[in-house]
Amino acid sequence: MLLEQIHSPQDLKKLNIRQLRQLAGELREEIIKVVSDRGGHLSSNLGVVELTIAMHYVFDTPEDKLFFDVGHQSYAHKLLTGRYDEFSKLRSRGGPSGFPQIEESEYDSFTAGHASTAISAALGVARTRDIMRDDFNIVAVVGDGALTGGMCYEALNDVGLSQTRMIVVLNDNAMSIAPNVGALSQYLTRLRQSNGYRAFKRGVRNGLERIPRIGAPLFRFLERFRDWLRSLFVDGQFFEALGIRYLGPVDGHDLKRLIRVLKRSRNETEPVLIHIVTQKGKGYEPAEERPDVFHGVAPFLVESGESKQDSMTACGKIAADQLVGMAESDIRICVVTAAMAAGTGMDVFQDAHPDRFFDVGIAEEHAVTMAAGMAWQGMKPYVAIYSTFLQRAYDQIAMDVCRNALPVTFLIDRAGLVGADGATHQGVFDLSYLRSIPNMIIASPRDIRDLKKLVALSRDVNYPMAIRYPKDGEDLGPGIQSQRDFEIGEWELISSGADVMIFAVGRMVQLSMQATIELTGKHIAAGVVDARFIKPMDRKMLVEQARSAKLVVTIEENMISGGFGEGLLDILNEESIEVPVLTLGVPDRFVPHATVAQQLEACGLSAQQIARRIQKRYLELFRSGR
Amino acid sequence: MLLEQIHSPQDLKKLNIRQLRQLAGELREEIIKVVSDRGGHLSSNLGVVELTIAMHYVFDTPEDKLFFDVGHQSYAHKLLTGRYDEFSKLRSRGGPSGFPQIEESEYDSFTAGHASTAISAALGVARTRDIMRDDFNIVAVVGDGALTGGMCYEALNDVGLSQTRMIVVLNDNAMSIAPNVGALSQYLTRLRQSNGYRAFKRGVRNGLERIPRIGAPLFRFLERFRDWLRSLFVDGQFFEALGIRYLGPVDGHDLKRLIRVLKRSRNETEPVLIHIVTQKGKGYEPAEERPDVFHGVAPFLVESGESKQDSMTACGKIAADQLVGMAESDIRICVVTAAMAAGTGMDVFQDAHPDRFFDVGIAEEHAVTMAAGMAWQGMKPYVAIYSTFLQRAYDQIAMDVCRNALPVTFLIDRAGLVGADGATHQGVFDLSYLRSIPNMIIASPRDIRDLKKLVALSRDVNYPMAIRYPKDGEDLGPGIQSQRDFEIGEWELISSGADVMIFAVGRMVQLSMQATIELTGKHIAAGVVDARFIKPMDRKMLVEQARSAKLVVTIEENMISGGFGEGLLDILNEESIEVPVLTLGVPDRFVPHATVAQQLEACGLSAQQIARRIQKRYLELFRSGR
Repeated sequence: MLLEQIHSPQDLKKLNIRQLRQLAGELREEIIKVVSDRGGHLSSNLGVVELTIAMHYVFDTPEDKLFFDVGHQSYAHKLLTGRYDEFSKLRSRGGPSGFPQIEESEYDSFTAGHASTAISAALGVARTRDIMRDDFNIVAVVGDGALTGGMCYEALNDVGLSQTRMIVVLNDNAMSIAPNVGALSQYLTRLRQSNGYRAFKRGVRNGLERIPRIGAPLFRFLERFRDWLRSLFVDGQFFEALGIRYLGPVDGHDLKRLIRVLKRSRNETEPVLIHIVTQKGKGYEPAEERPDVFHGVAPFLVESGESKQDSMTACGKIAADQLVGMAESDIRICVVTAAMAAGTGMDVFQDAHPDRFFDVGIAEEHAVTMAAGMAWQGMKPYVAIYSTFLQRAYDQIAMDVCRNALPVTFLIDRAGLVGADGATHQGVFDLSYLRSIPNMIIASPRDIRDLKKLVALSRDVNYPMAIRYPKDGEDLGPGIQSQRDFEIGEWELISSGADVMIFAVGRMVQLSMQATIELTGKHIAAGVVDARFIKPMDRKMLVEQARSAKLVVTIEENMISGGFGEGLLDILNEESIEVPVLTLGVPDRFVPHATVAQQLEACGLSAQQIARRIQKRYLELFRSGR
Repeated sequence: MLLEQIHSPQDLKKLNIRQLRQLAGELREEIIKVVSDRGGHLSSNLGVVELTIAMHYVFDTPEDKLFFDVGHQSYAHKLLTGRYDEFSKLRSRGGPSGFPQIEESEYDSFTAGHASTAISAALGVARTRDIMRDDFNIVAVVGDGALTGGMCYEALNDVGLSQTRMIVVLNDNAMSIAPNVGALSQYLTRLRQSNGYRAFKRGVRNGLERIPRIGAPLFRFLERFRDWLRSLFVDGQFFEALGIRYLGPVDGHDLKRLIRVLKRSRNETEPVLIHIVTQKGKGYEPAEERPDVFHGVAPFLVESGESKQDSMTACGKIAADQLVGMAESDIRICVVTAAMAAGTGMDVFQDAHPDRFFDVGIAEEHAVTMAAGMAWQGMKPYVAIYSTFLQRAYDQIAMDVCRNALPVTFLIDRAGLVGADGATHQGVFDLSYLRSIPNMIIASPRDIRDLKKLVALSRDVNYPMAIRYPKDGEDLGPGIQSQRDFEIGEWELISSGADVMIFAVGRMVQLSMQATIELTGKHIAAGVVDARFIKPMDRKMLVEQARSAKLVVTIEENMISGGFGEGLLDILNEESIEVPVLTLGVPDRFVPHATVAQQLEACGLSAQQIARRIQKRYLELFRSGR
């Protein structure tokens, strides 16, 4: 086995082309083995095996820098840069991250996770190189999906201006996370097929054939202009308009050609874009057939591709089902998503109401303002985006939606701690960044029943509203007890307690209930309020319950800074209620990859830890004589 | 005078071309008169007078919708849509906003203020129109500057996919707020000059002339292909790649041609981009000569163009001067800005160190991640952006800078209340959106001396850091007293008070000092702490001063939600210090245009109001028996 002997990219350079091809096969096998065991990104990683080998073969990392956009195509890179031994612990606590991280290896040129950042970071490094009069190579690998993000274009525009030496590899698999969208994607298809050139050729030939005598020789003459004409208006005029030399398209699985074009690009003195065409899922049949399903996967059986996990009840799907029904009688209801139709569960809505479903590509900023335009013109748009990616549209939420008080509803998926995807994907900032924006209503359901109710309730809300929930509906816990209906801003008293009152948000309600049981064992009577609206708060219930408590506790799956707890403190203070408050949530640091349970534990938010922390604070108060 | 008789765009349609030209002159005169009196955006508004007339002449607003990107070219539109009488109160409290606002007029199709949003909002309206089977026209006017923003490209990509009927007018004045940057700008220049076509023509002619006999007739024959060839690879291939029909370039001051091309575009069934070329400042000589200086101006003398205001001490310029000096001995220091070299005062740095100055265009996302790349490779980048525009880069600040703990320093200009630019430009969210991000240091100087110290201090800070300040250094007040030096996180006790302790941020320190004098008159002894670090806080001083106070007050020019005050509450709570706290700041609503003093008053933050609010709360406590 060759892979075992590759301790650094230096070892790779000793291999011949036949061995490199063998290595590609071994890398695929290893990736399939580990991802089937631990879950992770499969299709995109299988697609870039040859490219990764070629890059490490041609360039001298870590002096030369490789940037992987998003980073869900960096497994082969990790395996070739000294991380083979620990690769089986991929995405687990202490094991390699599923994304490049600067602290993990000197071969990871930049930390990735969110799309469309690689060219910007690479240009920053290139400009530094130029200022420092250094002389290494820089390669940014960007998928055609990430190219729908405006940030890529901002960066390309600046790269073209800078005319600094760097290489952008456009990894075109005609399929981003979701089937790729946007006009540019169609343009890439035209480039791949060189239809523009063919149409021109046809047009010219037809025109010329009508001319007697000189028509035919003229056409042959023009054929000689072929390359030049082709370069003028077929090959990558879009990129050339941005001042970047275009090379390609190149078969991304042909190692020999890849090595040749990379070597050639190494000698360029200006920015170059190499357009390579790859197949997502390459080398694993189930993934080749359904690359979207195998984009991000739970552990699966290698033979069949079947998932090893029981199917879960995705919150997104529940929200989508609800919306499908609502949309039947209400033409205003539509869904906007950013390259995450399946991830957010909204493919269900897409199937039911394709004419009112809009996937705009990896373009969260545009998604939100487009939805604002729809809302202003009379629609009731639901924008389904993961919490961490919605960060991209903070300004548009504030200025275009909330400034105009437009009834856009945000379905914020993957809120809270997200597990194996780690630090770049935690959905723990949304309460902080949304709460300070005027006109915004923020809700978080404690269980599936309330999620459905919130979605139903949102229909008649004539304001911006956000509903945040985790991926898995079962994490929310079973329906606890019944309050028939609720209004905007209405909390629910779930259980009373003479000593401590816990105000909990979302799936923390369930954990708080467990904690109260432990506390009862310690002779501390604690009650729980489901603070399902983070904004506006239920001031009446808060005052009532806080006034009679000896200790108030807030629990949220969000940063403590700027979060629910701090907002609650401010109201208590306004109401002149003097009661000690313990604010629990995510502490002021980034939380790395692990299981959700381990991450909760790292934040001190397991039921046991919650109980222990409450007990400790309560006893301190008792001792200090309250 | 014709303008007086235009009460709605209907009246415009009765005029002939000669009268329309006269109207253009009158509009210019009125705009120059009012802007010279009240300040505002001049160059961009003078540039689109003919375009605005032509649009209202051809289209039937408000049924047809006009979207003005950014909106600093909407004055002529306001004057033609029933706002002539109140136009003299432009940008004043109760008068018209300097930007389109949906609540101001039914002719304002969408609220604007931040760049690159118009196409997204327009597409949202277009899709709604299609769903509702409605049939009006939609025009989005976008400057070439705003086109450097990635959001424009995300939207164009989606427009091209949608193939819905809408018109994008690219208002190309080869000069955004700052001289335009980016490779695309060079591309537009090529389009304007049609060099591509000329080069082709030259190339083909030269090639053909070498062929005896058939060369010359052949060239003439090809000439007949001219339009087709031209459309293929000269005119707007960039836009055609995005699936959008390109028309142009058209002289943007030729009313007849504008009307003709707009009429033609009205009949299209697919998206069209009309490339018009205008001159910024058109019709006012000083502005034609220096369009950047007359982009946004204070009141000025019409005859000379000289400003009526005394020159102010811009905080940005002070920071820039400091950086220029630091950069002389430190090659790591560089500046990144987003189309705001002059606005942020950083043109001074650009002049001194052009090779370490990077204006990336209106592309805040790219600016921040590019800076992160530079910092990672060893530079010490300073990113100078207005508070409100930095909102665009929230995700990049969190993920690319703070997640990697990189030493990027943000120079946040126009922080706090900004006056006449109004709701879309208030810098009152940054403390909330930055405070929750781990690894971030946030500071705000109380005077110019401390601003210099903070910039000097930042040099050796190996972490992300933000320094926020208002536009005008004098707003910060004179240096109050001297603490020789300070460390990161160190506050300063400015004056003591046995009853009330005020913790103030930035220019609120000055106002708090004034308030304490008023309070002394009411026999309330209040002291002031300059909380110059919002994060980390000076826990030691806070505990010390809060423990001995009967009432703690926090004052900040930021939303109360998620701001400094709430963070302070959380620490008091952690430290088990039970003291009533009054949190003052911007309440939970958007603050419209007015003077800064009026806006402070609207937020209850004048010195008198601060004193009164403290007195009221203090007396309540006293009555309740504390």
